Amino acid sequence: MRAAVVRDCRIVVEQRPMPVPGPGEVLVRTRACGICGSDLHLFEHGAEMMRMAERLGVQPDNLTDGLVMGHEFVAEIVGFGPDTRRELPVGERVVALPFLEIDGLPVSIGASSRTVGAYAEYFLLDEAGLIPVPAHVTDAAAALTEPLAIGVHAVAKGAVLPKETAVVIGCGPIGLACIAALRERGVTSIRASDFSEKRRELALRFGAETVFDPREVSPLAGSPAGSTVVFECVGVPGLIGQIVRDAPVGARVVVAGICSQEDTFLPLLAISKELTLHFVSFYRPEEYRAALGMLAGGRIDWQRWVTGEVGLDCVARAFAELRGSDRHAKILIRPALK
Amino acid sequence: MRAAVVRDCRIVVEQRPMPVPGPGEVLVRTRACGICGSDLHLFEHGAEMMRMAERLGVQPDNLTDGLVMGHEFVAEIVGFGPDTRRELPVGERVVALPFLEIDGLPVSIGASSRTVGAYAEYFLLDEAGLIPVPAHVTDAAAALTEPLAIGVHAVAKGAVLPKETAVVIGCGPIGLACIAALRERGVTSIRASDFSEKRRELALRFGAETVFDPREVSPLAGSPAGSTVVFECVGVPGLIGQIVRDAPVGARVVVAGICSQEDTFLPLLAISKELTLHFVSFYRPEEYRAALGMLAGGRIDWQRWVTGEVGLDCVARAFAELRGSDRHAKILIRPALK
Repeated sequence: MRAAVVRDCRIVVEQRPMPVPGPGEVLVRTRACGICGSDLHLFEHGAEMMRMAERLGVQPDNLTDGLVMGHEFVAEIVGFGPDTRRELPVGERVVALPFLEIDGLPVSIGASSRTVGAYAEYFLLDEAGLIPVPAHVTDAAAALTEPLAIGVHAVAKGAVLPKETAVVIGCGPIGLACIAALRERGVTSIRASDFSEKRRELALRFGAETVFDPREVSPLAGSPAGSTVVFECVGVPGLIGQIVRDAPVGARVVVAGICSQEDTFLPLLAISKELTLHFVSFYRPEEYRAALGMLAGGRIDWQRWVTGEVGLDCVARAFAELRGSDRHAKILIRPALK
Repeated sequence: MRAAVVRDCRIVVEQRPMPVPGPGEVLVRTRACGICGSDLHLFEHGAEMMRMAERLGVQPDNLTDGLVMGHEFVAEIVGFGPDTRRELPVGERVVALPFLEIDGLPVSIGASSRTVGAYAEYFLLDEAGLIPVPAHVTDAAAALTEPLAIGVHAVAKGAVLPKETAVVIGCGPIGLACIAALRERGVTSIRASDFSEKRRELALRFGAETVFDPREVSPLAGSPAGSTVVFECVGVPGLIGQIVRDAPVGARVVVAGICSQEDTFLPLLAISKELTLHFVSFYRPEEYRAALGMLAGGRIDWQRWVTGEVGLDCVARAFAELRGSDRHAKILIRPALK
């Protein structure tokens, strides 16, 4: 089968052996897979992340040579391994939390060389985790389940109440997912900021009440003490320190942006304002199902979210485009596209 | 009246005018006042904190010249200002949250030059905040209300459940208060660490299950994923980064140690483990009352907590001793002592 593989700091298309499902596993064919900001990050900082793992005494995974990324997928069932219950038929479209159980432990799909991600024609899933996609949900919409679930989870961790003020910093896919999840929760006072005008427009369409250009004014300026929840959806060094400085008293800060470099902040400031910092990454199965339900219910403007589709041969170019401009919100990979 | 005053990087005893209670205020006589770790910090880092306030665009308070510290007090009512209800009689012993309302805003008592703290013979309190001390509670016990309330608040913020594991880093007064509050909440799996053997012993007496010398082993080693709550009760740069590195997946970290220098940590690690950092400082009135209730109920070994008592003339020496050795847990100032 064909797969887009990280090799020598590049992404190249290679032939890979067809995965063989083990006990409890299912072979699936990728219908669509989104390119995630964390994929861009992994591609750019893989070597750094491996060095960090070594420094922390963790066995580093090989992230720079041979990795097949892809964890925002919708796929269809092609075949079953041994010891499977086969309750869903071959051809059924499914999503799933991007983990494969190996030796009793969940290993991430698309961010570990021990699994094959969905930047490939085929990959493996655990049968127990399959979530069927309703017939009326398009592949493009279903592929947004994963990033939307990040937002659902982030907003749940922030425990935002309808009357509180949410400040979403960064209006990339995770920021948009947070805005959508906030609206779903009944929150209307949503301030969103991004350097890009295009993204600010998208944020308004997703339900932000006010948008800010951080070069002009901080979205935190004037946010109310005791009832502000901040969502950090960027992940660059310096931002957490800046939020700690600018956040009002009693703010909860949900950090969803992935920053793999060290960040610096003033604990005294965080203490004197009694800030809470929730660092979030994954989601719970029910949050994943809730995200799919939002898409199935037509409550997400997925047509505006998905701004491009490419085949495997164009993954490298798509990465370059996502890094270089704000033209795109989400690009989907469709291995079936030539 | 006599007061111990911060002057030219020293603490000296000076004559001060007797405070005059304004509307709603009460004049009280200090019976006892504990020396807090934050007092030592303020004394040592006052200039730095003033520079920081300036950098943040906040009107800096004068913390280095003329400040009268003291916020862990028990006092007795001496006289009433205008517009007071006088429900408590002259002579009644009281504690109170260390804030005085000035121009409609709470100003901290003992950490601002706009108020006089309890390192003095007399000071002012708002009548509305007075909490009477039951007759059987000694002055020494009552003076521990404030530091104990910090622990009650920290443990409440951590929302520790009885079956969870608590890791208390630093067994000074705040660490001890956390341990006491954890026991009060029914938590029994309490690991405490301190470089000082004396403090580790005290932690055991206060209810820690196991104590650790961090030079030998981290108290976080082997703490359970998903059910560990860490209490940072030290406040030195580097410690938060270390906790982020060593904490198990899903840990909540309550930061009560005051660190006024910048600290550095790796957001990626905090994200991948979904850590939550609660920065705490003060307490709510009901937590203050709960702390006094624990002391009144005889559930706190206050005799071991209070290891020294001095008059105003010996405050400077007491500061030096607290900084230089681990002989003391809490030293009380009693202005009536010669």
